[in-house]
Amino acid sequence: MDCIFCKIINGELPSKVVYEDDHVLAFHDLSPQAPTHVLIIPKKHISTLNDLQDEDAALVGRLQLTAARLAKEFGFAEDGYRVVMNCNEAGGQTVWHIHMHLLGGRALTWPPG
Amino acid sequence: MDCIFCKIINGELPSKVVYEDDHVLAFHDLSPQAPTHVLIIPKKHISTLNDLQDEDAALVGRLQLTAARLAKEFGFAEDGYRVVMNCNEAGGQTVWHIHMHLLGGRALTWPPG
Repeated sequence: MDCIFCKIINGELPSKVVYEDDHVLAFHDLSPQAPTHVLIIPKKHISTLNDLQDEDAALVGRLQLTAARLAKEFGFAEDGYRVVMNCNEAGGQTVWHIHMHLLGGRALTWPPG
Repeated sequence: MDCIFCKIINGELPSKVVYEDDHVLAFHDLSPQAPTHVLIIPKKHISTLNDLQDEDAALVGRLQLTAARLAKEFGFAEDGYRVVMNCNEAGGQTVWHIHMHLLGGRALTWPPG
């Protein structure tokens, strides 16, 4: 498996982990676009949003719940934050293992890219 | 209930619906930021991402699965697309009923706002 996020999950590559459970891992983005910019990923390898199956609904929902929990821990839940997922090139996806971006600590502008 | 999205769900306000099932409604954004810009919402009223409960995980996951399904129907799934959810003011939230933005049909830039 030549997926850098799978290697992070397996401990073969380092990361600054902020949350982990049996299904989800969250760690700081290496190129942060906000004062706090965390990636939240499923431990199950899913290449793109297009590859999601109906049985993945709860898993994807856990990513979102993790984002909200982390926003509270980081202290910007009430001020606000943005979560983003990119699919394929036009969406800006650069790692082919689905990941949710959590951005907080500044006012996010519109449009979102 | 003075929520415009609940009024759309109840048919009290018009919208250009693109998908509906027992739990989810999707309709075109009135201020599109991409050639296709759809909002995907739960029929259950949830004000912000901070209000999500653990039992909402599957429902939130259905929003994501709906986004992927719609991207295929609109024909931009392979080229790519972006999904965005905003929480509170700094995140850019303007309607207090959670909603997922699906943007496709152009290359999305980075950072996402």
